[in-house]
Amino acid sequence: MNANSGSDELSDLDGSPSVGEAAPDSPLPLFARLLRALLRVIGAPPIEFVLWSGERIVATSAPVLGRVHIRDRAALFGLLRDPFVYFGDAYSAGRIEIEGDLIQVLELISRSAQKRECRPSWVHRLAEHLHRPEANSLHGSRDNIHHHYDIGNDFYALWLGETMAYTCAYFPHPQASLDQAQTAKMDHVCRKVRLKSGDTVVEAGCGWGSLALHMAARYGAKVRAFNISRQQLAFARERAARLKLDDRVEFIEDDYRNITGRYDAFVSVGMLEHVGVEHYAELGRVSRHVLKPEGLGLIHSIGRNRPAALQPWIERRIFPGAYPPALSEMMRIFEPWDLSVLDVENIRLHYALTLRHWLQRYTAVEDHVRRMFDGRFVRMWRLYLAGSVVGFETGTLQLFQVVFSAGCNNRIPMTREHLYLS
Amino acid sequence: MNANSGSDELSDLDGSPSVGEAAPDSPLPLFARLLRALLRVIGAPPIEFVLWSGERIVATSAPVLGRVHIRDRAALFGLLRDPFVYFGDAYSAGRIEIEGDLIQVLELISRSAQKRECRPSWVHRLAEHLHRPEANSLHGSRDNIHHHYDIGNDFYALWLGETMAYTCAYFPHPQASLDQAQTAKMDHVCRKVRLKSGDTVVEAGCGWGSLALHMAARYGAKVRAFNISRQQLAFARERAARLKLDDRVEFIEDDYRNITGRYDAFVSVGMLEHVGVEHYAELGRVSRHVLKPEGLGLIHSIGRNRPAALQPWIERRIFPGAYPPALSEMMRIFEPWDLSVLDVENIRLHYALTLRHWLQRYTAVEDHVRRMFDGRFVRMWRLYLAGSVVGFETGTLQLFQVVFSAGCNNRIPMTREHLYLS
Repeated sequence: MNANSGSDELSDLDGSPSVGEAAPDSPLPLFARLLRALLRVIGAPPIEFVLWSGERIVATSAPVLGRVHIRDRAALFGLLRDPFVYFGDAYSAGRIEIEGDLIQVLELISRSAQKRECRPSWVHRLAEHLHRPEANSLHGSRDNIHHHYDIGNDFYALWLGETMAYTCAYFPHPQASLDQAQTAKMDHVCRKVRLKSGDTVVEAGCGWGSLALHMAARYGAKVRAFNISRQQLAFARERAARLKLDDRVEFIEDDYRNITGRYDAFVSVGMLEHVGVEHYAELGRVSRHVLKPEGLGLIHSIGRNRPAALQPWIERRIFPGAYPPALSEMMRIFEPWDLSVLDVENIRLHYALTLRHWLQRYTAVEDHVRRMFDGRFVRMWRLYLAGSVVGFETGTLQLFQVVFSAGCNNRIPMTREHLYLS
Repeated sequence: MNANSGSDELSDLDGSPSVGEAAPDSPLPLFARLLRALLRVIGAPPIEFVLWSGERIVATSAPVLGRVHIRDRAALFGLLRDPFVYFGDAYSAGRIEIEGDLIQVLELISRSAQKRECRPSWVHRLAEHLHRPEANSLHGSRDNIHHHYDIGNDFYALWLGETMAYTCAYFPHPQASLDQAQTAKMDHVCRKVRLKSGDTVVEAGCGWGSLALHMAARYGAKVRAFNISRQQLAFARERAARLKLDDRVEFIEDDYRNITGRYDAFVSVGMLEHVGVEHYAELGRVSRHVLKPEGLGLIHSIGRNRPAALQPWIERRIFPGAYPPALSEMMRIFEPWDLSVLDVENIRLHYALTLRHWLQRYTAVEDHVRRMFDGRFVRMWRLYLAGSVVGFETGTLQLFQVVFSAGCNNRIPMTREHLYLS
């Protein structure tokens, strides 16, 4: 399941001597010295940087385990100026290339930075400060969601698998297929809210509708599913009609803030990342008011071990307005409304597996994607998927599923056995 | 399993007319009007208050479901002045008595207050402000712990059951006995940290040693267990020697802040309530440093759905320095040290069941307790146990078990199936 980064990254080495710890006294041009200083700031990863001139820069005397090629002077200057955004931009533009396994090289850089505990360094803090997420007002949310989710259902259909679920799957065993794991995730969610036939459910942020349709088809639930991505909704509605589930699943083009009614379950899988911490109390208010007194809610979201902004390139180029919260921040959803947190499960390693599947499938259709968009788009998405694998594997990203209910509800499950004994 | 509050609470009613909503125009003495106003502030519970003079006061026109007797004028004035502390004191002194089922009457009052959402009212806020928990410095902790846990092993042995576990049990089914449920809790904890033979464990706050001994006897672990209650430790050591486990379990009289070494597991069951939020980062530092890179930690604590002080009478008379944290507060343990929260389970209804068992057993030995202490002590502990049942049943108190590990540990359990498939 190891996804290789694609053959277009490999290049011949010209054999110039390496400039680094091994040869500390060599006269170094200014930019090479600056690059080496930058590498030290990020913990001196065992990566060799090869310049357009053939010069090689390493910041450590440890064995080199990966290689990054910087193709021109402007790319180097960009990297020195704003490494956290420019690395991604230059990689997308083909001006920085990675030799060998993309995930492995990114992981070496990330682990090196973690080891030196330099993540919250002044460089990163500054980068975080300069790249504040875009505000998620009712209007702003639509723009941000449109940016990512409306780039074409055909594109996502190429590599997401049959379920078209674009959130962390749940692997009952590591050999499960992607589709099996996505279905297992949906069952895991349904069991967590103890879904039964005839229950009414509201879903905030329904993607292409897989969970809503699964709840209706397999559990006999009646579902109202909200989304502000028009393309996703068109796909979901077509699917509901094809499966003859359109009498039991209603797909609504509207913001979660406009949800009304009372339901047995509230679910939101993969929307919270786009809500913005300043709106969490509002999301909590909605959850509290739409849940029946004995209803159960579930929020599934990417998160953090402690508050930190999203990697700035991802936030700027891939997910504008997105923010993965720490649990202390997620509690702002629940605590103002006396919602009781019943269960939190962190399944980050399942997201690493999910992303490895996606990357493998994506890599296999890159030629197709290149024809749909262009080479820059192909590389940009490859980096995003590989970088996300690394985020979940190194523990800089988490995946939390939180089950909650009204504080006064005593008809909550006594144990969690029902999740596992099927 | 319904514990009756004891026969000394029942008294004859003299048949005087009730003064309340049903007779709004009756001329009311000032103190009666003040009491009625107070009852309205706490949501007008369906409880009749009977004064020493025979006068009856009700703040609602709903059917009366319980009765509280106020035996003298001073008790009423005390109640009006500081209801949150004085109710408990006057009940302990026998100057306020409750007719009928103690839990039921307390629950009616609590649910009424919740329904009106008046819990964070100015009265309560003021009470919280006036009764700040005592600081838990190294020295202060010893005083606070001594106050509650060193009142006599013989006393606790009367009603805690064979395990002598004084924390929330885990009922695999509601009919499990107290001892079965305490053993199931210990197994639940051991499974959560994936304990196996030969593992080393450090326990912060070990009570009378039941968990430490269970880990050694049933799982073959080597345990170092810390506690600052001398009486508990003496009991635990004697137990270890009797069970011939003293080569594998070391009981240490010291504060959690002085734990050293590196262990496969860190567990703390029922200590966090006594740590104080201002020391959480310190507890996190200790957990982080004593856990091996692939070790798992577990903290089990009473908590809240949102930050709020402990009921002031409980804090003042029963548990000085205690504070049940909200999850957002608990995160101050983990977030500063990049500890990753893997699993949170809220088992508050198990604590309600546990406390019902304790209260039932306690009520059965009240005569014995009266001989050991006095009538005031008997009533004080009865009120504390019954009030705690109500806290967990009405959802004003929670019980969180949090499993965590170093952020970079990838040998974490993929699923939680191992907790349930035995």
